[in-house]
Amino acid sequence: MADVEVLIPQDVERESPGKVAQVDLRIRVHVVEKDGTTTATQPRALLLGGLSGDATQRVLREHPSVEWVHSFAAGVEHLLPQLGDYQGTVTNSAGLHGEPIAEWVILMLLTHAKQLPLLLEHHRNHEWQSERGEELGGKTLGIVGAGGIGGAIARRALGLDMEVIGTRSSGEPTEHIATMYKPDQFHEMLPRCDYVVVATPLTSQTTGLIGEPELRAMRDSAVILNIARGKVIQTDALLRALTEGWIAGAYLDVTDPEPLPADHPLWTAPGAVITAHTSGHSPRTTERVVDFFCQNLRLWLDGQPLRNMVDREREY
Amino acid sequence: MADVEVLIPQDVERESPGKVAQVDLRIRVHVVEKDGTTTATQPRALLLGGLSGDATQRVLREHPSVEWVHSFAAGVEHLLPQLGDYQGTVTNSAGLHGEPIAEWVILMLLTHAKQLPLLLEHHRNHEWQSERGEELGGKTLGIVGAGGIGGAIARRALGLDMEVIGTRSSGEPTEHIATMYKPDQFHEMLPRCDYVVVATPLTSQTTGLIGEPELRAMRDSAVILNIARGKVIQTDALLRALTEGWIAGAYLDVTDPEPLPADHPLWTAPGAVITAHTSGHSPRTTERVVDFFCQNLRLWLDGQPLRNMVDREREY
Repeated sequence: MADVEVLIPQDVERESPGKVAQVDLRIRVHVVEKDGTTTATQPRALLLGGLSGDATQRVLREHPSVEWVHSFAAGVEHLLPQLGDYQGTVTNSAGLHGEPIAEWVILMLLTHAKQLPLLLEHHRNHEWQSERGEELGGKTLGIVGAGGIGGAIARRALGLDMEVIGTRSSGEPTEHIATMYKPDQFHEMLPRCDYVVVATPLTSQTTGLIGEPELRAMRDSAVILNIARGKVIQTDALLRALTEGWIAGAYLDVTDPEPLPADHPLWTAPGAVITAHTSGHSPRTTERVVDFFCQNLRLWLDGQPLRNMVDREREY
Repeated sequence: MADVEVLIPQDVERESPGKVAQVDLRIRVHVVEKDGTTTATQPRALLLGGLSGDATQRVLREHPSVEWVHSFAAGVEHLLPQLGDYQGTVTNSAGLHGEPIAEWVILMLLTHAKQLPLLLEHHRNHEWQSERGEELGGKTLGIVGAGGIGGAIARRALGLDMEVIGTRSSGEPTEHIATMYKPDQFHEMLPRCDYVVVATPLTSQTTGLIGEPELRAMRDSAVILNIARGKVIQTDALLRALTEGWIAGAYLDVTDPEPLPADHPLWTAPGAVITAHTSGHSPRTTERVVDFFCQNLRLWLDGQPLRNMVDREREY
């Protein structure tokens, strides 16, 4: 059987050297440079990761032989418009970023419960000053878009004795979430939550999903966390919610716009904590994505259905 | 049978009104004022909580009829010297503060792993700047003095996929801690840990337990957390460890001295985070202590052995 050229970004190959080549004797790995150039002649598969949109477009334009593209990210809303005329298979890394993101969520739940920013401020001022913290145990966490990452969050929240509820467009059950609300019950779920975490993919359905009615439906003591995409929450409504006290805080790993300009009012909104798209960072992510890609590559070579196929109609 | 007068600090009775009186028809609750005065004539039991040392001493001096004192705190190293000639029973609240303290520990583990203080600084500067975070999953947490609170910490750390090991003077097993080091293996445990949390009672045995040899035995990438008592760690050695990079950080809910003076060098030591004895705070603590006291009161009235008896020789 003929050689199979597989394209891998230079940085990814450097972090996990040789792994992809070991999947099968037929595999020939070619790295993709930052500008999208490569020494491959007839590449058939492309693992993305850290490439600019321009570089991605260049690879696909110059190599129409590519028939499978794997996204390093879980969300593909940036990737899909870059694909141009490409009509081949797209897979994503949904579920592979869940561990660090779930840890980020737990960190922010506790940061809020214990008033950590205030405690750190006392430290900076050399003040021996305590604050009355809440306990997370017994509090209710609602997960909007409770898929794989939602399950990873839920498992950890249960370990902290929280109640976990969720909602998800497909209505399918998610591990570790006992009570799942149907999409049309979304507004019934919100007032039950002490914490609401947004974990839905960004699609035309979820763009602006959280606006004034949803924020007003939340308790004024509740906080919202966003580890999905900034555009799932309407920024103007969120600003009013924080300023007028509809809710008690917003822990945002993603914002709209992004990056957030230095003069944007969200930086100074009461109760806002913004962490500049860090939640998915982990030294273990590249290894997980490459391992997953290798498993999919095995399936692909064997003519089996791939995992994490992106439905371009559904947008995730 | 005769009435039994029980003394309860005003603040505690206000937070959990009527509970103690409901334990038995014979119970007559009398509140203790801030200055230690009370309307009781022959009180037999004293629930402490929020009383000054002077007030505690006054109650015991003026009411030699007291035969049982229950400490709101788990640690009794402050209480024991205040007891004077009192030779009756002492019980403590060991295990009742574990939930919020364990949450504090998880918060600090994640704060370190995700570099939260740096992320919050970027926020204050309106900088869209991410940081490479570590993942807590797979890291090793070592618990020094792994009793009840250690078990509460361990359960949550396991839920975050950490490895949990521990050491404890009694050598008895603790729930959720698979690998327990014997006290004489303490120095073997330290270099295995990414995080070391000090959770031992303060006794003459544990005063200064963590000094230069112990801090040097830790990895230079490891951090220490203290939710026990400040004097368990030798402050001078800790300062050198942080300044000279023997370890990467110290998350201290307790310090020696306490309160820490504004000009103390620990405030500015690299990697130090100090939270002014807040870890045990929870709106649920008073209820837990009163409930426990009520259970013990039932046992006491029935002539049964009390739980959480303090051994004044052992000092906890």
